[in-house]
Amino acid sequence: MDKVENDEMIVLVDEKNRKYLINTGWSERKIKGIGVLDPTILIGKPYGGEISIGNKRFWVFKPSLMDKLQGLKRKAQIIIPKDIGVILVNCSIESGQTILEGGIGSGSLTIALANAVAPTGKVISYDIREDFMEHAMQNLEYSGLKQYVTPRLKDVTKGIDERELDAIILDIPNPWDAIPHAWEALKIGGYFCSYSPLISQVEETVKTLKKHRFIEIKTLETLQREITVTKRGCRPSFDMLGHTGYLTFARKIV
Amino acid sequence: MDKVENDEMIVLVDEKNRKYLINTGWSERKIKGIGVLDPTILIGKPYGGEISIGNKRFWVFKPSLMDKLQGLKRKAQIIIPKDIGVILVNCSIESGQTILEGGIGSGSLTIALANAVAPTGKVISYDIREDFMEHAMQNLEYSGLKQYVTPRLKDVTKGIDERELDAIILDIPNPWDAIPHAWEALKIGGYFCSYSPLISQVEETVKTLKKHRFIEIKTLETLQREITVTKRGCRPSFDMLGHTGYLTFARKIV
Amino acid sequence: MDKVENDEMIVLVDEKNRKYLINTGWSERKIKGIGVLDPTILIGKPYGGEISIGNKRFWVFKPSLMDKLQGLKRKAQIIIPKDIGVILVNCSIESGQTILEGGIGSGSLTIALANAVAPTGKVISYDIREDFMEHAMQNLEYSGLKQYVTPRLKDVTKGIDERELDAIILDIPNPWDAIPHAWEALKIGGYFCSYSPLISQVEETVKTLKKHRFIEIKTLETLQREITVTKRGCRPSFDMLGHTGYLTFARKIV
Amino acid sequence: MDKVENDEMIVLVDEKNRKYLINTGWSERKIKGIGVLDPTILIGKPYGGEISIGNKRFWVFKPSLMDKLQGLKRKAQIIIPKDIGVILVNCSIESGQTILEGGIGSGSLTIALANAVAPTGKVISYDIREDFMEHAMQNLEYSGLKQYVTPRLKDVTKGIDERELDAIILDIPNPWDAIPHAWEALKIGGYFCSYSPLISQVEETVKTLKKHRFIEIKTLETLQREITVTKRGCRPSFDMLGHTGYLTFARKIV
Repeated sequence: MDKVENDEMIVLVDEKNRKYLINTGWSERKIKGIGVLDPTILIGKPYGGEISIGNKRFWVFKPSLMDKLQGLKRKAQIIIPKDIGVILVNCSIESGQTILEGGIGSGSLTIALANAVAPTGKVISYDIREDFMEHAMQNLEYSGLKQYVTPRLKDVTKGIDERELDAIILDIPNPWDAIPHAWEALKIGGYFCSYSPLISQVEETVKTLKKHRFIEIKTLETLQREITVTKRGCRPSFDMLGHTGYLTFARKIV
Repeated sequence: MDKVENDEMIVLVDEKNRKYLINTGWSERKIKGIGVLDPTILIGKPYGGEISIGNKRFWVFKPSLMDKLQGLKRKAQIIIPKDIGVILVNCSIESGQTILEGGIGSGSLTIALANAVAPTGKVISYDIREDFMEHAMQNLEYSGLKQYVTPRLKDVTKGIDERELDAIILDIPNPWDAIPHAWEALKIGGYFCSYSPLISQVEETVKTLKKHRFIEIKTLETLQREITVTKRGCRPSFDMLGHTGYLTFARKIV
Repeated sequence: MDKVENDEMIVLVDEKNRKYLINTGWSERKIKGIGVLDPTILIGKPYGGEISIGNKRFWVFKPSLMDKLQGLKRKAQIIIPKDIGVILVNCSIESGQTILEGGIGSGSLTIALANAVAPTGKVISYDIREDFMEHAMQNLEYSGLKQYVTPRLKDVTKGIDERELDAIILDIPNPWDAIPHAWEALKIGGYFCSYSPLISQVEETVKTLKKHRFIEIKTLETLQREITVTKRGCRPSFDMLGHTGYLTFARKIV
Repeated sequence: MDKVENDEMIVLVDEKNRKYLINTGWSERKIKGIGVLDPTILIGKPYGGEISIGNKRFWVFKPSLMDKLQGLKRKAQIIIPKDIGVILVNCSIESGQTILEGGIGSGSLTIALANAVAPTGKVISYDIREDFMEHAMQNLEYSGLKQYVTPRLKDVTKGIDERELDAIILDIPNPWDAIPHAWEALKIGGYFCSYSPLISQVEETVKTLKKHRFIEIKTLETLQREITVTKRGCRPSFDMLGHTGYLTFARKIV
């Protein structure tokens, strides 16, 4: 059975499915939700096995994509797995592609994109805020995906240097201002995607897309609920996120 | 500019975003929604360009994942992109993995899984119906993804031969019967997923998962609406699919 | 047991829950969904009993509110029971009130309002289209609620003559233009409500409400699904209406 | 302008739309959310006017149905306005009817039913818990609707004494056990309604209804979201209730 080694990124999952990305080579430190932890105690534990730290139970795994997404440290608002799935499929993201992301935030979408294009593709991520960039790249390092991401301290609405991109995905307040540059930078048939919380942003984005050479323009809203299964029976969860963002998609033509 | 060549799979997209997967080496034939077409007339056309066939307009592209999903021929009920995105992310599917699918249907999920694990991974697909298998493998061939899929005419509830699988995804009426085999076949930390239209199936699946060594058991329901943008303003689309299936996920522990 | 009498409005309900409002005093006529019917054959039948007409089965009832709503003849787009319930509760409609409706449409909301304020209250309904007014009043007559409704061929955005109204409910393209008049016409604490399909209409309405003396301003969107119960189990219905209209509410202060 | 008088039930609404039902004849008391209040200070204030208490602003109104629903004191889980609207319309509740309620809870549905059948109808409410009954009747008194409600300390699954009821509405764990009694007690064409959080309850209820003489059997689930309008634009609220209860309806035939 596979065992945890030294200087390895692992994930601890607790009974409430909270996740903690930890490097077994780290020195002793306080981790919120766990307490003071000397990560070297994890070395030699079998993967998939149960571990007690203090009075809490954890399971240890090699981090999967979901572990990386759920274990990241938030600074800005993040794009959640519900919307990431919609983006990956509707932009037809796959291994080997080159994707540009505008607005790195805390790096959650970046992690999913890097994971999807690895090991031969890459993600170029523009952001104008150095603090977000540093924070997100830290999350990417913890996720072991840093090598697939090129951070650029640059405003995507001021121009895009790259060409023949497979997809461009924006999480910025004014995506319409980046649309002419996005058209130039995309390959034929490449996908444009924009994530916006407000309906007025959707409207402006769609109107601008229609003025450029794009087809398959559509906007999706996705709602997701957990189903609670108890001994007495099943019901939808009382907790539900009422809204995150609208996703607008389009595809470049000649 | 890239041009369509002979004996190539391309996609034609019409103004209503209907998609037709066509090989330019095919002989003249009748294609529902297009009419009689001699595919060789497409040779030499620029990708991303507009083409008139009869009195209809089309655009020609190299098929993306979405083209492959939207252009497939249906025999059984298919898993739609809304749910495919949820599966890809929640099962942490990525390039290089080995995935087992139980119930190939028309091959829509198979296409997405093959696309995600390519070029170094593979999908093993069990089904007990030879006619479904043949139909699905035809769709996979049109999608250019056949080489990543191993079809097996076998009942997944009777046993799974493979081991150390990264994920097992079931679209069968009685997924609970496959759970003991799924546990054996998954790697530590690997994901189990089941797609079921009925809540009673969810209940039985979750109860059975709880009796085996799985954690992170959860069931998700996803609703998706298009937003219609007109000159007069925005509103959600009147058309909406009320239900497809519930997705239950779990993760193997020791 | 109660029996159907002559010259009485009854409802026939078929096995698919389609409803037909019929007067037993009517002469023989063709009714879409039933065929040629001599309504006098219904006289003497017990209420709640089964009746065969041609090769179809029906049940006969005294029309309830739902029968009146589901049995009306549509000319314009109607406000459906899902939204009617939200309006009745959020506007605190009750017996004895005086309600003004702007935009009668086919009279579906009018029927529900008349039913709610009866027997001592009344509904005043403004519309600028005489053909809608006549059609809606015909539906109200079939519903036996005509005496509670005062139709007025008048543009509600040009002024409201009535005062001390308990509620004003608008289903017109430009509700914001009626807001100053609505404030004048409502009693203190009375409710304003507007039904709009477009989000831009909501925005303009809310902005205008905020400029006048209204509190408790809110906009609600309601989604409703049927649950299908079969021998094999339960699931949400595949059919679902993705959108009807947004409902904006407000309450007059001094 | 109308002014607040002595010994009158009024509602105070604060800036966050929280509501407080208060009698101006009450002695000074501490009210959670307001602080210590001598209600007599409200006497003489104009309705619809603004009032300062401590450092908070309030508006004073004669209580509407919504005020009564939003201002009630909770002991048990309540049925919320979203579901009350669905019940009122789908059971065709109107002034003058006699309705039986099984399971009074905190009296929220009772308030809405009493308000709808007043001034000539009545609500009979069965509950087996004396403490709930007392608490709910207190809420009904504050709502000024007590005279329309007959509380009965009785188990609705053990039998119903009344006959010719217009509707029977159940909020109990085992509604199926009351169905034979409900059929006996309803008038022809009268409505049965059951509110259940669990899908297994829906299943059992529908199966039992199908064994008795009921038609128009259906189950509805309703989701409601608020739309947030800000200066920057509109979006659905992030807060949303994922689930309350399923509503099953049916109608008695001979």
